[in-house]
Amino acid sequence: MAIVEVFTDEYFMREALKEAQKALAIGEVPVGAVVVANNRIIARAHNQTEKLTDATAHAEMLAVTAAANFLGSKYLTECTLYVTLEPCVMCAGALHWVQLSKLVFGASDVQRGYGLIKSPILHSKTEIVRGVKEEESRTLINTFFKSIRD
Amino acid sequence: MAIVEVFTDEYFMREALKEAQKALAIGEVPVGAVVVANNRIIARAHNQTEKLTDATAHAEMLAVTAAANFLGSKYLTECTLYVTLEPCVMCAGALHWVQLSKLVFGASDVQRGYGLIKSPILHSKTEIVRGVKEEESRTLINTFFKSIRD
Repeated sequence: MAIVEVFTDEYFMREALKEAQKALAIGEVPVGAVVVANNRIIARAHNQTEKLTDATAHAEMLAVTAAANFLGSKYLTECTLYVTLEPCVMCAGALHWVQLSKLVFGASDVQRGYGLIKSPILHSKTEIVRGVKEEESRTLINTFFKSIRD
Repeated sequence: MAIVEVFTDEYFMREALKEAQKALAIGEVPVGAVVVANNRIIARAHNQTEKLTDATAHAEMLAVTAAANFLGSKYLTECTLYVTLEPCVMCAGALHWVQLSKLVFGASDVQRGYGLIKSPILHSKTEIVRGVKEEESRTLINTFFKSIRD
């Protein structure tokens, strides 16, 4: 019997995509995130800026705060954040403060992504993986903005 | 009788300093903030990263979320944020999202301030005033870090 590698980046990004779907279903910009420690999802969140009337209620901010709460630690040094869209500057700044171990994101954000900033924002120890389930992540976003325009 | 200008930047920064004092009293890095709309303080907050076990619980983040909640609006386009220390990248990113009208800060943060970043982070319409009650703001921070070292 072949050994099946279950806990891949794709696996956890699918979970983040489920969160993004929840956002889409309630009319939010569909971005989802999960925080994983030791192959266990310790926090899930989706964008809730409209629901909470709070422009800072991005999926990453909510997920990071929930993960820190779960762990009882300010730092996520043993954690991976999976998020369907490249984090913005605010969220990347938050990921710096929590000293995130690894960041995995789906689609790039060419308008608001932290990668547009010329200086490094993430913590120097944070490993970065880009483009996991990129197409699905981008399709969700495009679906949302098309629905707004129509 | 002379007309006394009460609602100056110095006046509101004194209120932010009172918040910073509250942080100092409970062992937090002493940074305080208030949000003002139409000369009225609509939100007050101080750094609570230790108390909330949340590295993102900076005074500005808490104040901005509280102000948005008070106004029932995601945007703080008619608001001024007074904060005793120059915002970090995360907080400056948040101030961008809320489209803050005016930012007034006390001491510069030469280690973590958003001004260290080469790209603009704040919203293009945000007016910026630096150095209001700078010495008092810096003294508070220095007092805190000296107490930690001793």
